Amino acid sequence: MHRTLSVASSPVRDLLALTSRPEVISFAGGLPAPELFDQDGLRAAYDLALRDRSVLQYAPTEGNPVLRSLVSHRLTGRGLPTSDVLVTTGSQQALSLVATALLEPGAVVAVEEPTYLAALQCFQMAGARIVPVASDADGLDPDSLRSVIAAERPALLYLVPTFANPTGRTLSASRRAEVAELAASHDFWVVEDDPYGELRYRGSAVAPLASISDRTIYLGSFSKIGAPGMRLGWLRAPADLLRTFGIVKQAADLHTSTVDQAAAAAYLTHNDLDAHVTRLCVAYGERRDAMIAALPSTVPDGTTWTDPDGGMFVWLRLPGDVDSAELLKDALSHDVAFVPGAPFFATTPDHATFRMSFTTNTPAEIFDGMSRLAKVLR
Amino acid sequence: MHRTLSVASSPVRDLLALTSRPEVISFAGGLPAPELFDQDGLRAAYDLALRDRSVLQYAPTEGNPVLRSLVSHRLTGRGLPTSDVLVTTGSQQALSLVATALLEPGAVVAVEEPTYLAALQCFQMAGARIVPVASDADGLDPDSLRSVIAAERPALLYLVPTFANPTGRTLSASRRAEVAELAASHDFWVVEDDPYGELRYRGSAVAPLASISDRTIYLGSFSKIGAPGMRLGWLRAPADLLRTFGIVKQAADLHTSTVDQAAAAAYLTHNDLDAHVTRLCVAYGERRDAMIAALPSTVPDGTTWTDPDGGMFVWLRLPGDVDSAELLKDALSHDVAFVPGAPFFATTPDHATFRMSFTTNTPAEIFDGMSRLAKVLR
Repeated sequence: MHRTLSVASSPVRDLLALTSRPEVISFAGGLPAPELFDQDGLRAAYDLALRDRSVLQYAPTEGNPVLRSLVSHRLTGRGLPTSDVLVTTGSQQALSLVATALLEPGAVVAVEEPTYLAALQCFQMAGARIVPVASDADGLDPDSLRSVIAAERPALLYLVPTFANPTGRTLSASRRAEVAELAASHDFWVVEDDPYGELRYRGSAVAPLASISDRTIYLGSFSKIGAPGMRLGWLRAPADLLRTFGIVKQAADLHTSTVDQAAAAAYLTHNDLDAHVTRLCVAYGERRDAMIAALPSTVPDGTTWTDPDGGMFVWLRLPGDVDSAELLKDALSHDVAFVPGAPFFATTPDHATFRMSFTTNTPAEIFDGMSRLAKVLR
Repeated sequence: MHRTLSVASSPVRDLLALTSRPEVISFAGGLPAPELFDQDGLRAAYDLALRDRSVLQYAPTEGNPVLRSLVSHRLTGRGLPTSDVLVTTGSQQALSLVATALLEPGAVVAVEEPTYLAALQCFQMAGARIVPVASDADGLDPDSLRSVIAAERPALLYLVPTFANPTGRTLSASRRAEVAELAASHDFWVVEDDPYGELRYRGSAVAPLASISDRTIYLGSFSKIGAPGMRLGWLRAPADLLRTFGIVKQAADLHTSTVDQAAAAAYLTHNDLDAHVTRLCVAYGERRDAMIAALPSTVPDGTTWTDPDGGMFVWLRLPGDVDSAELLKDALSHDVAFVPGAPFFATTPDHATFRMSFTTNTPAEIFDGMSRLAKVLR
């Protein structure tokens, strides 16, 4: 028998199955609030798109030209001058294209630790060796990055600089400048994964890394500001690299759904996405505040947590020698759930950590869920 | 600078750009006829699906359970007993998942020659070495396969056994039995790519290879019987392999569009796809006959061509020392197009060959296009 790739499923996704009982209040999944989807607007956009039968046909790999133009215009308006993007089947596909195009087996990928675990899986599947870079309240630590560069010569640095998954932290502007300078002088690519950047609830926007570094591949997504079920993301990169990613995408799925792309283009043309994002930010900001306010009476003394300005997640660390995966079993018996932190570490996991998402539940549900959780943790 | 994957675009897709001038009658692309899409039925299916806001949310990697059940039932009804499938973002993604999961760099993939060129690209991108197997009017030649097995020990055999791309040929039942026996005794996987199997215009169905071989990974698609813009395919494989492909898919794009999947499930529930396929077969059969009837007065004496019982393609070989890629330039100046045959060969191309698709144009357009082509070829 020839060998089959040895792969493990995502623990978070396996866990989602356990938390889907309707009586569970789940802080586990990184899911947008379904009641906030603009269902009517999107339904009308699909109906409009499907008046043109060409949306049912094969289409160019690089994506719907109207959608690419609208997305480029939107990025430009947000401070990232953009002439073109490649439409991807969600940001996850963009990560997979990056791994396929840029990583040879044995290549070194530096990642902020902890980080988005489906990115880790993608790089591991490409045969890359993952090297962690330390981070603190201001995001990835440039001194740690310098050490990793000197010791490992990474081909790629992957990070979620704004409202990171799982920590909610944002890389400061001065550190972005340092990362940009290191990428230029040490000749590696930076993957700036930015699904959450528009979900800011306080403070001012920090300019994207891609706006100050031409060594940056920028990934955006419709999943958190529109609807993840449509599987629409986009990749911005220097022109020659964009073309390479397009060729790799051709082998991956020929092109992203013509229907979903045309519906998104119609939606962006006939609706005010900025106004919708503002509504999301108001609702999610309240949910963030509700969770943060409940934390002191939920967790034991000595617990630390992040205090995110946006995004979807709070990251916590319990005191003492505890394993949050064990505590999750207790939590599930109390009909509440979170994600244990260990899988977000590329190398040595910190078992006392866990991630809580505040976007999926209303403030009342958060209050209720935190009371349940207090019985487990305190 | 670290290395970037060296990749070439698909010549056929690059060519499609050249043939998109409206005055060109193109026999080049493998496109379904857009006027035969069931636009009203699909539009209604999307609208029905979008009444449920859960179609806008993230969803399980393996696919919509209703769609998987409907597809499994349909496959079972067509003589391929099926308990489950993995939904893929078109059949192209299924090929990519197979390559990622089963091929190590340097692995040998045996392919019928000529064959579908995006499959060749997929295997090449995975670092596989491609070895051609000869074929004749009955499809892949088992004696040639035996030689390849003895010399190369392939990990995988890829073929389109029914109405192949680019030849239109169908592997006979007796040869299918030989291939199944060879796969079992020599321990390799067979990828049975079957996008065209339902498009039969004469003769009787031949049982799928997967129905007589448990070493077979079967790929199906909504692209030719429904609409390719929806990017919906499915993969049937032994349970342990299906699970592996699911994990690889998770890294590739998390899941296929929830919206497109729900729309397809709604369409299959509320419409008679068999009746639609019958309409397609009537129309495509007339187009096939129109092209075959016009060929003797279009091509020079000594030209040979296949006489397909179904699918989309006729494969031709011109007499003498000619290069069909050169002739294509002449053809384009006469506003008619085909695909040169060379890219469909894994190793040594036969430049005198070319592929003609008969599905995209009406019989009248075919008649007109063949007259233009006669001026170039005769």
